[in-house]
Amino acid sequence: MNFDTGSLTYDDKGLIPAIAQDVETGDVLMMAWMNAEAIRRTLETGRVTYWSRSRQAFWVKGETSGHVQEMVDFRVDCDRDCLLLTVRQSGPACHTHRRSCFYTAVRGGDEVEILAPMA
Amino acid sequence: MNFDTGSLTYDDKGLIPAIAQDVETGDVLMMAWMNAEAIRRTLETGRVTYWSRSRQAFWVKGETSGHVQEMVDFRVDCDRDCLLLTVRQSGPACHTHRRSCFYTAVRGGDEVEILAPMA
Repeated sequence: MNFDTGSLTYDDKGLIPAIAQDVETGDVLMMAWMNAEAIRRTLETGRVTYWSRSRQAFWVKGETSGHVQEMVDFRVDCDRDCLLLTVRQSGPACHTHRRSCFYTAVRGGDEVEILAPMA
Repeated sequence: MNFDTGSLTYDDKGLIPAIAQDVETGDVLMMAWMNAEAIRRTLETGRVTYWSRSRQAFWVKGETSGHVQEMVDFRVDCDRDCLLLTVRQSGPACHTHRRSCFYTAVRGGDEVEILAPMA
């Protein structure tokens, strides 16, 4: 692999935000964090792998839930400090069992739930 | 406005990542940062306003370039530590004059430019 994970800009904890977008619907599913090793594993295995800040451990998406993310495309932004992954998502991406983590909208100054948990 | 910007989780610099998604194409255009006051201004004016970390100043998107972002919908994720804005984007979102900042893909281990600057 010619791509150098060291060419990216990480924050002071060595992390970079990664947005996951559904390749079929275009919906933004979630945003989580990767470090250089999580990026390497994601690119090599095709299984999207984040760094869990709460658990301080690698987080192979869906490893316990079965709701895996298969990487389809991996993109870097102009500043090289944010990633966009298009993914094939099995089931819900959110731990609340909703397809996307972004299920709350603010409309007219009020919060509105716009997405129900999947059956 | 009943929505309380204090209910969100900010990082140690008082910032929260905000993803901008094109309401027409579904393309993810960029990711930038907001603080509580930028969120308030965005919701009140409908003009997407970020906090520029490099300039340490409010950044009304398009104020100098004319490439404004009109807020269409404002969403909060399950952890309340990331925002997703659907926007109506005038012209390119990226300072490189590309429609999206995510114009570089990593495919087969190599970087590939997948989006040209707009005319």
